[in-house]
Amino acid sequence: MNRILFEPAEIAGDLATFGGARAEHVRTVLHGEVGQILKTGELDGAIGTGEIVEMGESIRVRVRHTDVPLPPWVDLVLAPPRPRVLKRLLPQLATLGVGRIVLVGAKKVEKDFWGATLLKEEIYRPLLVDGLMQGCVSSRVPTLETRRNFRKFVTDELDARFPTANRLVAHPYGADGGGAANGAQSGAGRLLLAIGPEGGWTDEEVALLEAHGFARHSLGPRILRTDTATVALLAQLMPRL
Amino acid sequence: MNRILFEPAEIAGDLATFGGARAEHVRTVLHGEVGQILKTGELDGAIGTGEIVEMGESIRVRVRHTDVPLPPWVDLVLAPPRPRVLKRLLPQLATLGVGRIVLVGAKKVEKDFWGATLLKEEIYRPLLVDGLMQGCVSSRVPTLETRRNFRKFVTDELDARFPTANRLVAHPYGADGGGAANGAQSGAGRLLLAIGPEGGWTDEEVALLEAHGFARHSLGPRILRTDTATVALLAQLMPRL
Repeated sequence: MNRILFEPAEIAGDLATFGGARAEHVRTVLHGEVGQILKTGELDGAIGTGEIVEMGESIRVRVRHTDVPLPPWVDLVLAPPRPRVLKRLLPQLATLGVGRIVLVGAKKVEKDFWGATLLKEEIYRPLLVDGLMQGCVSSRVPTLETRRNFRKFVTDELDARFPTANRLVAHPYGADGGGAANGAQSGAGRLLLAIGPEGGWTDEEVALLEAHGFARHSLGPRILRTDTATVALLAQLMPRL
Repeated sequence: MNRILFEPAEIAGDLATFGGARAEHVRTVLHGEVGQILKTGELDGAIGTGEIVEMGESIRVRVRHTDVPLPPWVDLVLAPPRPRVLKRLLPQLATLGVGRIVLVGAKKVEKDFWGATLLKEEIYRPLLVDGLMQGCVSSRVPTLETRRNFRKFVTDELDARFPTANRLVAHPYGADGGGAANGAQSGAGRLLLAIGPEGGWTDEEVALLEAHGFARHSLGPRILRTDTATVALLAQLMPRL
């Protein structure tokens, strides 16, 4: 928790009031006391600092949010791994600067995934917020949507929703190597990255993505677990500033 | 489990016999039957294929291990995160091609870490083997050692144990950016990577590493959790072939 982020409703005027895990962190890790300055921010808003003005059951800080957060640099079309794995992955996606996540029903996604409680906003949103507070530089909560019909999503919706030409598709049994990635980094705009399920994309799925402008990107000869592969890809492609 | 790896003691002549989780995987995921060819290998030895000759309580395969596995390309000096996090990280390190892991007692490593049961070989070795079986291309089990006295290890032991000049130090509050990393990739030999604890290296620790030839490497403005940072660093630096 390198920056404390508040829901807009928690801020009144220039005063933010909060309890729970964030307050516990301020108390026990940061040893907060009145007058102390914290890194703070407003979810989906500006970031800056907050001065502790009251340490009670709740904590109150006077915020000064005048800095522009780093915007997301990448969106994901993700064939979801098992809920247990996705749960670990979501905060990391927020930390790494992902803007929009579309979970798609590729052939090898397990059918019972779509009933997971993790897909409820009250469950996944706190995980994403945790990831933002870890990353420290952004306040934009990634959006998460589901599209069980992969072909329909790619054919009918993808181009309108993601107008970038900067598109890469990755899967464990990779293809072209790092060439496409280098191209992707060089100022071609926000990246759209498609990541397959644990068992890989089918040939038809890769062909469909390629037909929609996705260039192949391989992580090399080692076969990575989906969550490892996702972090690895984002790390390879992210702008270093 | 993209390749089934055997302990040397499980192989007699050209026949390997095994049970447990690997046999369960062959049965339920690969739908193994007599005559079927599997990707197999011997831990710390050659890799190749195995033909199923018997499907009973145990499974028996006739192996033909004539291929050379990919060697490790990087070693880690790692200030360990909490055991729960390290436990998740270890298989990923094996998958990603790490050869030797030295866990060091940096200042911000929690003291009770060193009593963790995870540090027993019978606990951590199966995790590393799982990671190798996921990665599919290597059979070399990473070694794991502990050195609680960080300064003594770096001063007295590091140069003799790791004769490479290709050294990078990373920590969340980064420094130089990607320049060093590019240099590191270009054929300078096996890489030695130092990764700090959740709270970061102290200034003294970084200075000591720099005095021993470690160049700084930053992951950019986002502050990553130790496990995310470790995978991200390895992904950025690994040879793509």
